[in-house]
Amino acid sequence: MILLDGKKTASEIRSELKEEISKLVEQGKKVPGLVAILVGENPASEIYVKSKAKDCEEIGMKSKVERLAGNISEEHLLDLVKKYNNDENFHGILVQLPLPKHINEEKIIEAISPKKDVDGFHPISMGNLVIGKDTFVSCTPAGIQELLIRYKIETRGKHVVVLGRSNIVGKPIANIMLQKKDGANSIVTICHSAAKDISIYTKQADILIAAIGSPNFVKADMVKEGVVVVDVGINRIEDKNSSRGYKIVGDVDFDEVAPKSSYITPVPGGVGLMTRAMLLKNTFKAYKMYCE
Amino acid sequence: MILLDGKKTASEIRSELKEEISKLVEQGKKVPGLVAILVGENPASEIYVKSKAKDCEEIGMKSKVERLAGNISEEHLLDLVKKYNNDENFHGILVQLPLPKHINEEKIIEAISPKKDVDGFHPISMGNLVIGKDTFVSCTPAGIQELLIRYKIETRGKHVVVLGRSNIVGKPIANIMLQKKDGANSIVTICHSAAKDISIYTKQADILIAAIGSPNFVKADMVKEGVVVVDVGINRIEDKNSSRGYKIVGDVDFDEVAPKSSYITPVPGGVGLMTRAMLLKNTFKAYKMYCE
Repeated sequence: MILLDGKKTASEIRSELKEEISKLVEQGKKVPGLVAILVGENPASEIYVKSKAKDCEEIGMKSKVERLAGNISEEHLLDLVKKYNNDENFHGILVQLPLPKHINEEKIIEAISPKKDVDGFHPISMGNLVIGKDTFVSCTPAGIQELLIRYKIETRGKHVVVLGRSNIVGKPIANIMLQKKDGANSIVTICHSAAKDISIYTKQADILIAAIGSPNFVKADMVKEGVVVVDVGINRIEDKNSSRGYKIVGDVDFDEVAPKSSYITPVPGGVGLMTRAMLLKNTFKAYKMYCE
Repeated sequence: MILLDGKKTASEIRSELKEEISKLVEQGKKVPGLVAILVGENPASEIYVKSKAKDCEEIGMKSKVERLAGNISEEHLLDLVKKYNNDENFHGILVQLPLPKHINEEKIIEAISPKKDVDGFHPISMGNLVIGKDTFVSCTPAGIQELLIRYKIETRGKHVVVLGRSNIVGKPIANIMLQKKDGANSIVTICHSAAKDISIYTKQADILIAAIGSPNFVKADMVKEGVVVVDVGINRIEDKNSSRGYKIVGDVDFDEVAPKSSYITPVPGGVGLMTRAMLLKNTFKAYKMYCE
């Protein structure tokens, strides 16, 4: 069993980007920039945005956090997004979700220029992904594919089984893996809560991608020997032995499933860190595609 | 075995639309309009466009065919599309594909207003389909779902196996059937040429959708008893008994597979006619959403 080490791989990606950016600086060029827009007070969002800014700093990428009061109008936020659509110093725009309820998230996401849509949530980005055009892929599915590629895991003709059909993980990763491209070209099954017996599908997986948000859901008897497991779940469960009173576990029962796996991502230390790294990579891509 | 009769169902849809449109006329309202743009001379395209115009006429929908010489410039075509984007008499715009090689098809498709994209080929339409927003779905996959719904075929929790991953059939129908919606909510497997043994997947299908363009590809030993078969293939094969010298067959060997099926579409007389009917339905929808 080999661990798909998201921490190490994300660190490699940051190093590569840092080198690219230092070359730009040497050449006296502008550096890529990412702006994160945060509306209202949400402790989790605050942590995410801070860690994203820290990542940018580490690799020499320009970053800015726009903090707005929770009671600002939708129009105000739209104006701010438009301002950054036209700001040549920022190549990626990230609106941290969730937004307060009086603001229409879809409308805000659709206002972001597709050229700066580094979260890949714009319908145009999703459509281009499905069609097979080069586009911004949302960070978690992009990170999953990157991890498989860097570990040289064969995907061509393999059966990828995706658990979960969310717009930010399940649907995009399914649509990525079925493309006739390197690092994909898989037979893909997407299953979800409507399945009568989900293990019929999970047992067939050469590569199992679990993204349902249900702690330790996948057990050893649900997978076949030698499966590659990518665990997207980040679930808090009670842990009396921890000083925090809880611990983070994935959607896969790691202790049970790891011995049967050929490769498996740990939680934490797996997909989550890849997601953060792919945001940087997408921002760098936006810079390369539309600025340089 | 019950035949999924595309001819009858398409005719029902046309009747329903005809009634809706006659109500509009009674009320003295504008009627929905569809413009088809045909570039160059292509006998197949000419037939398609003519049959679409005939369908419009039958139901009282306004229609127009713009015929352009094969050597017109991309810019000329773009200007024409833009003109119809702003023409309030036409609610649907159809650019008949394929276009001559000197014209970039993607660019033309993306120039069509998403509000008039009745073919559903615009990346925004595809993205919204995946995300689960109400949008224009391309006519063949929309017709397949409509047929399943009208025959009251249970789809929830059923295993839908899609053969083929084209942008106009395989990918959209897979993304439709996995949505948490009525007439969908299925477990979906999408398989294609990279599969080592495709029958592993086809044998599991509760509903098999074949869209690979390979005549009589699916045989009886590849499906299970009671399968629902939707055959999207339209293939010409030699037929010495026919005065034309050929006949049209699907991707499924009908004579072999029909006896094992609970429901099956014939070819011709199945999905092809539904495709035509859905174009009318999409145009009517465009009218309802953005005009009335």
